[in-house]
Amino acid sequence: MDARSLMNPAFATIKGGLFDTVAKADVGDGVGRLLEKGVDILAWADPFFPDPALPEPVQKSMIEALKTGLPAHYSMPIGMQELRKTITSKVVRQTGLSLDSSRNTLVTPGSDSGLLYAMMPFLNPLDEVLVPDPSYPSNFLNPKLLGAKTVAVPLDAKHNYALDIQAFERAYTPRTKMVLLTHPNNPTTTVFRRENLEALSRFIIEHNLILVCDQAFEDHIFDDLEFVAPATLPGMWERTVTVCSISKGLGLSGLRIGYVYAHECIMDVLYGAAVNVLGASATISSIGAITALEQIDYLAELSQRHERRRNLAFDIFSAVPGVAMQKSESGILSWLDVSELGTDAEVVAYLLEHANVLVNAGSAYGKQGEGHIRIVTSCFADDAKAAEVFTRMAKALRKLGEQKGIR
Amino acid sequence: MDARSLMNPAFATIKGGLFDTVAKADVGDGVGRLLEKGVDILAWADPFFPDPALPEPVQKSMIEALKTGLPAHYSMPIGMQELRKTITSKVVRQTGLSLDSSRNTLVTPGSDSGLLYAMMPFLNPLDEVLVPDPSYPSNFLNPKLLGAKTVAVPLDAKHNYALDIQAFERAYTPRTKMVLLTHPNNPTTTVFRRENLEALSRFIIEHNLILVCDQAFEDHIFDDLEFVAPATLPGMWERTVTVCSISKGLGLSGLRIGYVYAHECIMDVLYGAAVNVLGASATISSIGAITALEQIDYLAELSQRHERRRNLAFDIFSAVPGVAMQKSESGILSWLDVSELGTDAEVVAYLLEHANVLVNAGSAYGKQGEGHIRIVTSCFADDAKAAEVFTRMAKALRKLGEQKGIR
Repeated sequence: MDARSLMNPAFATIKGGLFDTVAKADVGDGVGRLLEKGVDILAWADPFFPDPALPEPVQKSMIEALKTGLPAHYSMPIGMQELRKTITSKVVRQTGLSLDSSRNTLVTPGSDSGLLYAMMPFLNPLDEVLVPDPSYPSNFLNPKLLGAKTVAVPLDAKHNYALDIQAFERAYTPRTKMVLLTHPNNPTTTVFRRENLEALSRFIIEHNLILVCDQAFEDHIFDDLEFVAPATLPGMWERTVTVCSISKGLGLSGLRIGYVYAHECIMDVLYGAAVNVLGASATISSIGAITALEQIDYLAELSQRHERRRNLAFDIFSAVPGVAMQKSESGILSWLDVSELGTDAEVVAYLLEHANVLVNAGSAYGKQGEGHIRIVTSCFADDAKAAEVFTRMAKALRKLGEQKGIR
Repeated sequence: MDARSLMNPAFATIKGGLFDTVAKADVGDGVGRLLEKGVDILAWADPFFPDPALPEPVQKSMIEALKTGLPAHYSMPIGMQELRKTITSKVVRQTGLSLDSSRNTLVTPGSDSGLLYAMMPFLNPLDEVLVPDPSYPSNFLNPKLLGAKTVAVPLDAKHNYALDIQAFERAYTPRTKMVLLTHPNNPTTTVFRRENLEALSRFIIEHNLILVCDQAFEDHIFDDLEFVAPATLPGMWERTVTVCSISKGLGLSGLRIGYVYAHECIMDVLYGAAVNVLGASATISSIGAITALEQIDYLAELSQRHERRRNLAFDIFSAVPGVAMQKSESGILSWLDVSELGTDAEVVAYLLEHANVLVNAGSAYGKQGEGHIRIVTSCFADDAKAAEVFTRMAKALRKLGEQKGIR
């Protein structure tokens, strides 16, 4: 008896565990096995991985808390009160929204579970969710896991991956329930512009939709681009669920602290089933997160480090024949068009074999990601180490290009 | 615009946040507000709450790990490899099952999210889930959150809350997909007996069902009762998803480490969507959990403490006129029939007002829980403090009984 015969189709077709290829870095023991072999992992969006990256004040506050013996106990399923207050202050500071930490803010054990939870209340079977393509792989799978249908809406590299509202209109049907946006986008790092988001919000309001907005990468925006949270746009507050994290912005992915903010009509429901769906966040992590969020200067320092790394990656990779790329607009990633060198799977395999690095194949991010690779350019604490790895990768890509007659 | 108009009915009717009463201890800031007022909380199944409860070796290993700066980074979404190995050894030791830590074991950020996740792959809209009544409140809500239907199957106090297979047969329809069991049961502490579980397993196999078995309380079984994991019964391994936790057994609920074990046909799917649904567990918690699980003696010591507390609670509460109870068979809870004293909501409110304690109203655990209260008798580190609080509660209950003419 194979229990998959009793599963719903969205799950029954999922593959995981030992038999998965290395291309999906977040499944099974794949990454662990590669690390054991000495492969450099540039496929996990985890700043400065694998080097020590716990800021001294965060480390200190967590150690002090452990000494009390109290982190053995639960914090509230909706999040430790003091952490919700600290998070709410940050959001109010960044957005100007008027939030109450006991009505509008939920702590989640990382933003992944927060992202799925944000969608859960709204999705019924056969509902359709519009997902820009390329974007975060979970965006394509999550609606299906909840019995709904994912409808990809292509973004075009030629238009800097801006939201194409006409494509959204074409994708719309009476079953459309939700738009799922990652902003800034992952993998493209695109910071969607104000007028572009305003056009999207008109589309959403006109069709009475919900927006779930994943802002995991919002904390590091380059080149003085304006970051607009869609929840702040007219008419959007009551229909937007915003999902954030301290994983990328503060470089503390191991703590597993994310947060969601929304109108109280939505949040009352999310509070009500928080213990069922999320459980609660780790108490010791919550304490560390409070300290991290109170270190404002730290965020600015991190931005400088990520921007330096972005420039380094651009200088090295954009000089490779057969590679096309833009300077990243945000965060810790670079997005390379390698279609002249082969399929993305081929290039990933080539880099693993010839440069001893794991990067992400673009097709995991949607059809528009084909022929691209995603590189986590803020891996390693040390710029010199990063430069060495990038140079090794560029050399391999050059060699691959030469084999294909590209110079 | 109220976004609840766009929600599916199971969610739209959930109430949470500030407007919830204290009876649901795990929603909103309710517990926090009561703690601020100096109320003793015996409503959270968190051993020794609110006193320090981190064993010294666990504390030490977590502090040492923090000093390296490495817990800033993710561990694998399916769980840190070494933690999976440690957990798997424990399960193999306890059950005799033959498990592979990279094929059969998943770490979850606490067992609550693990419990919902265990059900997700199997439930389609209109599927029916059989849930013994009384049992853990989430068991009644979770199937609904996934679009399915919950069917309560009454357990009878007169038969020591054993599973009534004839009642299961009566509740069965062709839409029945799953049995959801909490074993030992919460709130009744019942350790289901081998022959009773064998009968249930015959029912499950005959009707081609899935069993999701929540064993959060399995680690402390009293009076030499045999604990049988249903996954070990003939024909059950391939159709059972077992969900466990270190929260209750090891008294480390604040770490948020749970685990799931199952046949690889099921586990491949759970691995495949782990990052979507769960994210990952906190790295520093995983390190603490490894240390805790390696301290075998510690578990035996905890059992003695819980058993002492169980006896204390029985001696004090069973002597109160109008209270009927059995000695707990497992864990950290006591389950009191207070129906002679009033509804469970009335008794909870009375204890809050007159004894300054919060306990759980039995009707949250199903219709069969009406007229009962659940008390977390392993609250407080110190037996003397517990005795003081229990005595204060007993005094209040006596007074309530006197008002009703019970002596």
